[in-house]
Amino acid sequence: MEFSTATLNRALELARRGEGHTRPNPPVGAMLFTARGKCIGEGYHHRAGENHAEVEAIADRQRRFPKCRPDTLLVTLEPCSKPGRVGACTDAIIRSGIKHVTYLCTDPNPKNRNRARRVLAACGISCDHLPCIEAEELIKPFAKRVKTGLPYVTVKLAMTLDGKFADNWGDGKWISSEESRVVTGRLRERVDAIMVGAETVRKDDPSLLSHGKPNPDLVRVVVSRSGKLPKKAQVFADGQNQTLVFDDPRVALTELGKAGFNHVLCEGGAGLATSLVEQGLVDEWLTVLCPKVIGNRHIRDAALLGAGKLKDLHICLRA
Amino acid sequence: MEFSTATLNRALELARRGEGHTRPNPPVGAMLFTARGKCIGEGYHHRAGENHAEVEAIADRQRRFPKCRPDTLLVTLEPCSKPGRVGACTDAIIRSGIKHVTYLCTDPNPKNRNRARRVLAACGISCDHLPCIEAEELIKPFAKRVKTGLPYVTVKLAMTLDGKFADNWGDGKWISSEESRVVTGRLRERVDAIMVGAETVRKDDPSLLSHGKPNPDLVRVVVSRSGKLPKKAQVFADGQNQTLVFDDPRVALTELGKAGFNHVLCEGGAGLATSLVEQGLVDEWLTVLCPKVIGNRHIRDAALLGAGKLKDLHICLRA
Repeated sequence: MEFSTATLNRALELARRGEGHTRPNPPVGAMLFTARGKCIGEGYHHRAGENHAEVEAIADRQRRFPKCRPDTLLVTLEPCSKPGRVGACTDAIIRSGIKHVTYLCTDPNPKNRNRARRVLAACGISCDHLPCIEAEELIKPFAKRVKTGLPYVTVKLAMTLDGKFADNWGDGKWISSEESRVVTGRLRERVDAIMVGAETVRKDDPSLLSHGKPNPDLVRVVVSRSGKLPKKAQVFADGQNQTLVFDDPRVALTELGKAGFNHVLCEGGAGLATSLVEQGLVDEWLTVLCPKVIGNRHIRDAALLGAGKLKDLHICLRA
Repeated sequence: MEFSTATLNRALELARRGEGHTRPNPPVGAMLFTARGKCIGEGYHHRAGENHAEVEAIADRQRRFPKCRPDTLLVTLEPCSKPGRVGACTDAIIRSGIKHVTYLCTDPNPKNRNRARRVLAACGISCDHLPCIEAEELIKPFAKRVKTGLPYVTVKLAMTLDGKFADNWGDGKWISSEESRVVTGRLRERVDAIMVGAETVRKDDPSLLSHGKPNPDLVRVVVSRSGKLPKKAQVFADGQNQTLVFDDPRVALTELGKAGFNHVLCEGGAGLATSLVEQGLVDEWLTVLCPKVIGNRHIRDAALLGAGKLKDLHICLRA
């Protein structure tokens, strides 16, 4: 079966719904079609311990189109073929009567790569790998952890044209524009943990929560050599998501990797972010370049280049 | 006559040969054609006090194609119609037998705008304004000075991901890559003056000369509140281009504007650049974002993001 771009985008969109919730698993989306190409089932992996995307799509078909015969399964990642916390997807696929499976990327674990193909072929089900960059992107954090044991690390820092992350009074909360904070805030919805340094907790006292729908799966991480942190800081006192404290960034990432965290977002300060680069731990660095200079002023009095008509620039560098 | 993109680009290319040499005039290029569209003359304004582009193109025709009759003149800027240090171009056009003139932008001085059209029409020569963004770009510095009395100011600063312009020992010379220094070095060939703060002279001791062909028209400007500057610094001791010292950036730009400087490039330090933005004196800001962090290291030991495979990014913000 040939898939349209719209169909592939739909499968990716389904997968993305799980982002930020599936650790230690990756986000995955699946769609089920009849032999004539009608979509009769959709699903995604909601959370570790719950159904995988393939099983969700099969169940969706049973509910919504009990009389239609499933023929082809499209899934953003090669189905698992070994039972984990739930049964192997290949078993569910075999039981469902599906004749053909197309997956958009292979299992990043070399031991499992193309294993599904062999397992399914033995039962007369053919498999296609249709390479898709967006699907690879989506499992990049998972793939990194599987291969290296460490989470994928994104650094995000807002900076002025004169290289400041805060003013001379330590006020760094509102460097970037409201508009660009909304954009970068969406990053928080896609990651497993948000990490900051102790100074950021002391000076900015951020909640580190996603601005959108609350995500109980998001974990907050503070790196502090001394461990001396204000107990009244939001991350400790707001009764919201879990907050972990580590005394070293490498130890933090190693432990998070062991615990199955795929994607960690470091939101500063610059000292912690720098130390992560120095240790080769950063996978991507997002600079939000704000068209203003602080000089010796308070942030609220920062001078704008272009009298307010220029927007923040979001510049992403991939290591 | 219709002009191809290649012809327009050629006229702009001719004009650009004068960049950095023509103050207080703008760079201008001109081409002369027969009625059948054959190019029989080319010219550009080399330097103030020398021939304007139109006169150069007319003379070029007389030398190279004495038997061809000139019909249409293409010029990147509306011809001058008042005698200045040289005779008015409209007079030369009238004398040459040209029938038609196309210019790519109008005179930025409101008093002169479309004046050439009236003067030439009175002599039976028709005029066309063919608007061209690149031609407007080329005279932007000149246009700003004519309208405001102040030069067009470009700031160029290389910065690391951790917002540093130099390391903690003041070493800021080699923040950016050799490759990107060559690119930004070309900027120096297009401006009338290069301005830096006193600290930059003390710490980096730059020559502030263009890396390409020596340009004796380029003036070096140092802003120093105290006026205490090392006499042995290259800008004073190398026997090359003139170096002016001012005690205040606004005074510097006002004086440079009065003296006919169209385009001033500020290459730091961050303090001077910040002060220029605060005073609303900056027209464009070029950040060279270098994919490295300095932290507490020497520049030579800066940690690279991406193990050296990422290039500097050149980000230009227009005020």
